[in-house]
Amino acid sequence: MRQSRAFIPTMRDVPAEAEVASHRLLLRAGYIRQVASGVYTYLPLAWRVLKKAMAIIREEMDAAGGQEILMPALQPAELWQATGRWDDYGPLMMRLVDRHERPFALGPTHEEVITALVRDEVKSYRRLPLILYQIQTKFRDEYRPRFGLLRGREFIMKDAYSFDRDEAGLEASYRAMYRAYVRIFERMGLKFRAVEADAGAIGGSYNHEFMVLADVGEDTIAYCTACDYAANVERAEVPPPDPASAPDEPVRPLERARTPGIRTVAEQAAILGLPLEKIIKNVVYLADGAPVVVLVRGDHQVNEVKVKNFLGARFLEMADEATIRRLFGAGPGFVGPIGARDVRILADHAVRHLRNASTGANEDDWHYVGVNPGRDFQVEAYGDFRVAQEGDACPRCGAPLAFARGIEVGHVFKLGTKYSAALGAVYLDEDGRQREMLMGSYGIGVSRVIQAAVEQSHDEDGIIWPPALAPFDLHLLVVNAADADQLTVAEGLYDALTSGGLDVLYDDRPERAGVKFKDADLIGIPLQVIVGSGVKDGEIELKIRRTKEKRRVPLPEALETIRAVRSELA
Amino acid sequence: MRQSRAFIPTMRDVPAEAEVASHRLLLRAGYIRQVASGVYTYLPLAWRVLKKAMAIIREEMDAAGGQEILMPALQPAELWQATGRWDDYGPLMMRLVDRHERPFALGPTHEEVITALVRDEVKSYRRLPLILYQIQTKFRDEYRPRFGLLRGREFIMKDAYSFDRDEAGLEASYRAMYRAYVRIFERMGLKFRAVEADAGAIGGSYNHEFMVLADVGEDTIAYCTACDYAANVERAEVPPPDPASAPDEPVRPLERARTPGIRTVAEQAAILGLPLEKIIKNVVYLADGAPVVVLVRGDHQVNEVKVKNFLGARFLEMADEATIRRLFGAGPGFVGPIGARDVRILADHAVRHLRNASTGANEDDWHYVGVNPGRDFQVEAYGDFRVAQEGDACPRCGAPLAFARGIEVGHVFKLGTKYSAALGAVYLDEDGRQREMLMGSYGIGVSRVIQAAVEQSHDEDGIIWPPALAPFDLHLLVVNAADADQLTVAEGLYDALTSGGLDVLYDDRPERAGVKFKDADLIGIPLQVIVGSGVKDGEIELKIRRTKEKRRVPLPEALETIRAVRSELA
Repeated sequence: MRQSRAFIPTMRDVPAEAEVASHRLLLRAGYIRQVASGVYTYLPLAWRVLKKAMAIIREEMDAAGGQEILMPALQPAELWQATGRWDDYGPLMMRLVDRHERPFALGPTHEEVITALVRDEVKSYRRLPLILYQIQTKFRDEYRPRFGLLRGREFIMKDAYSFDRDEAGLEASYRAMYRAYVRIFERMGLKFRAVEADAGAIGGSYNHEFMVLADVGEDTIAYCTACDYAANVERAEVPPPDPASAPDEPVRPLERARTPGIRTVAEQAAILGLPLEKIIKNVVYLADGAPVVVLVRGDHQVNEVKVKNFLGARFLEMADEATIRRLFGAGPGFVGPIGARDVRILADHAVRHLRNASTGANEDDWHYVGVNPGRDFQVEAYGDFRVAQEGDACPRCGAPLAFARGIEVGHVFKLGTKYSAALGAVYLDEDGRQREMLMGSYGIGVSRVIQAAVEQSHDEDGIIWPPALAPFDLHLLVVNAADADQLTVAEGLYDALTSGGLDVLYDDRPERAGVKFKDADLIGIPLQVIVGSGVKDGEIELKIRRTKEKRRVPLPEALETIRAVRSELA
Repeated sequence: MRQSRAFIPTMRDVPAEAEVASHRLLLRAGYIRQVASGVYTYLPLAWRVLKKAMAIIREEMDAAGGQEILMPALQPAELWQATGRWDDYGPLMMRLVDRHERPFALGPTHEEVITALVRDEVKSYRRLPLILYQIQTKFRDEYRPRFGLLRGREFIMKDAYSFDRDEAGLEASYRAMYRAYVRIFERMGLKFRAVEADAGAIGGSYNHEFMVLADVGEDTIAYCTACDYAANVERAEVPPPDPASAPDEPVRPLERARTPGIRTVAEQAAILGLPLEKIIKNVVYLADGAPVVVLVRGDHQVNEVKVKNFLGARFLEMADEATIRRLFGAGPGFVGPIGARDVRILADHAVRHLRNASTGANEDDWHYVGVNPGRDFQVEAYGDFRVAQEGDACPRCGAPLAFARGIEVGHVFKLGTKYSAALGAVYLDEDGRQREMLMGSYGIGVSRVIQAAVEQSHDEDGIIWPPALAPFDLHLLVVNAADADQLTVAEGLYDALTSGGLDVLYDDRPERAGVKFKDADLIGIPLQVIVGSGVKDGEIELKIRRTKEKRRVPLPEALETIRAVRSELA
């Protein structure tokens, strides 16, 4: 494509709200433009990248036995009401009513629609397993859309759904999708990790996230420094501490201590002359409306996902001060498990072995010291209720965990029978018995992944596309379009490369050389073919975008060398 | 693809609301399923057909200089308010508010979004002309969605927009798009006509519709039986009658005649003993609130589009009885131009030369007879205000017009400066003067066109795909999958054909031969390759779906013959 005719509106000044490099670069290099907060137009360059990404995804999904369909964005409310998600999704789901006042969701995902489809069309075990997928536009009304395509309100997803007869079938489908995802992200040239993750609102018990490693990622990955364990920090397991590591100190009597006006566990520790590790932090929640207090060590954080999963609760929210006072007779900061009634008490493993700790006395301005779990209070359960920290023991091998930031670009879930049960997706097995289908759900953020690729691969001059995602195979530049020799050579190369099946962006614009070089680096096509003053010596120049390495090539060898260098890069 | 694993849920009983053959066939053959009224899921077969259609469209749009982008469905209300279409679109536009109560449209079209984009990014004549297009999901809240994909509420469109410096540039872009459309529909194997059409709510003065000819079409096309004039009947021009054809009869005096209780012009004609052609029909409208009465001959119908265009009105609605009584002092059926005040009077050309006609006397139960236009009343303008009829003179050559039904699958518009003026899309010309861009808009109903193809090409047994749109290149059937010889031959052919680059649907199911043959005819792939009992004589059979012609082919020649027959069909 001739750049003089191409719609590539590069810009110098990017809007201040573009906080991350990839967002700034996609704007500057003329790939995307914002239409509304979290809503973008993909310009020709971005659309080309998306087409490359979608082609890779389709090939691997088809190879893994997937069949492509297309489901609608408009989804009747009744389907979502049948699974309870009409309410669960809350304001994240965009909704509208049609002219007959019938309510619709704008699909943030398609479990309901596909389950109803398969329920209606598949009745026999002979039609299973089945993997259906689509590449489709999704809508989520994010409270704070940001980071360009990383957290938008209208975005492109690949979503796949598997239907199986039994757990073994589901495991096979899940593995097939997992492997397809690994191939997809490898082919895209991304540095990524598959991590164990929590299921969130989609439900289901077992799942992995595919994370592109990048410092701006909104997710934190905990990974083992020794083995290949990796998990979203929301999900990372923390094994119980070794009982032998409990402090070997004499047990003291329980006493009350006055702690006027303290507001934090740090203040509490300071006033009492105790380390944070000897403070028991009490966090009060309402789980589906019922009060629960969760005890963790002062230097730890409650992991609400773990608490919610343990309780099997649909909603978990922090209790407000009035509720806390009613339950404990004291304000937040002064409550504790000793003497507490009418509230479930959960405690993190690390609390179990504390000696002579401190906790609230259920009276304003007072704490207990000399607190010893088991002697002074009982709990309903000890468990893994805290957020993992760097240095925690790996749950697999015990080596220390380290943290990295990642951008979630894919997610594979085992859903089990959650949706098939709610919507009645059953089949008859070989013996004529009716059974619920086992389902899996598998997503890739297609528009997100192209920005994640930029986040992971750029420099101060612009984007450096992985070759598999680049909008063009080559960027051909004529340095001085007014020079007849240069133009003749460039036009000849353009014709030869194009008719040889390569997709070439040809900068034939009557711009200054500096502008052209800057734009080429900004746009980020991996290989630049520069036709400049070397033509008079019978030479052109190749430039590798990533390394900035340049190489002079005699004209007669140009085509052959270009093809060879391109193959090396890919 | 092996049919035993393919998701092709054929069905015997189709829902009663499937009124047209193409809708019934797409349901029966397992191509589509309804999710809500006018909202469909495209199953794997339909998605394959759509991909074929989209590939043809992309190739021709790219060849015509178009650049592909993707714009969002969510469109801020402010853009639509700027052009006045937030109100004009009425209930046909789906709307929602986001969590911050900001109003959005779900785009029924994208003139506003693209005009704002080009306004922001193109400032100089050097960047023009520009043709941008997308293939994208549109939303229109039809009052009565029906006919499956022909009139849905969520559907796939290709929409393109051209931006030019001047009228000559617009004409060139329009012609390029027109030619691309002709190639697209020709390549799809459709019988179609490009007809002159009215612009409707999109605005603009000059446009053509591309109509696939089919009896169920919702549009009527008027076409000349002699020259190549064709127009939507809403738009078809009616030339003024030759004054020489006016009746040569003595002019009579104006008289009142009692016509008690008549309700129709037919009753009026009967009671007065006059032919319908001597009745003047008076239809009262409010044009943007102002009263207008339009006079046409009793055997003609008012064409409201022509009236609206003549008046330059945004809204034209029939006046209610109270308004009519207030204006004329009589009820509908008894009003007329004689003595009428405070109302604009328009009359169709055919009224001008009436002699001794009849019209309402502006008093209930009374008409005038002996009415002679010019003598008895004056009009503001005579013009072409009626709907064309079969047999009317062609406006180009005068030969009689005939009518046909068509399904609109494409539309090309010259928009002029309507949107660029409203949204400020200006550029600087060579002389540094600021000028408004001239725009065109070009749509193809992608999901609609695949059903239109079925409507045009099917028989009592099922679909007959034009080869360019067929979901697979070939349908290979093994008649008895339990017969080892047949299975061996079929599997060998499947491997050979597939590795030869053909897309093969292979019916390897353990079904009865009758079921397989019926399904194959229903699904409608143009060429069937049948491996049956002839295998023992070293033969297979080819069947042309359209003609049902069968041909025995010796096994050694099978591959070569299949390829040759396929090329003949395509």
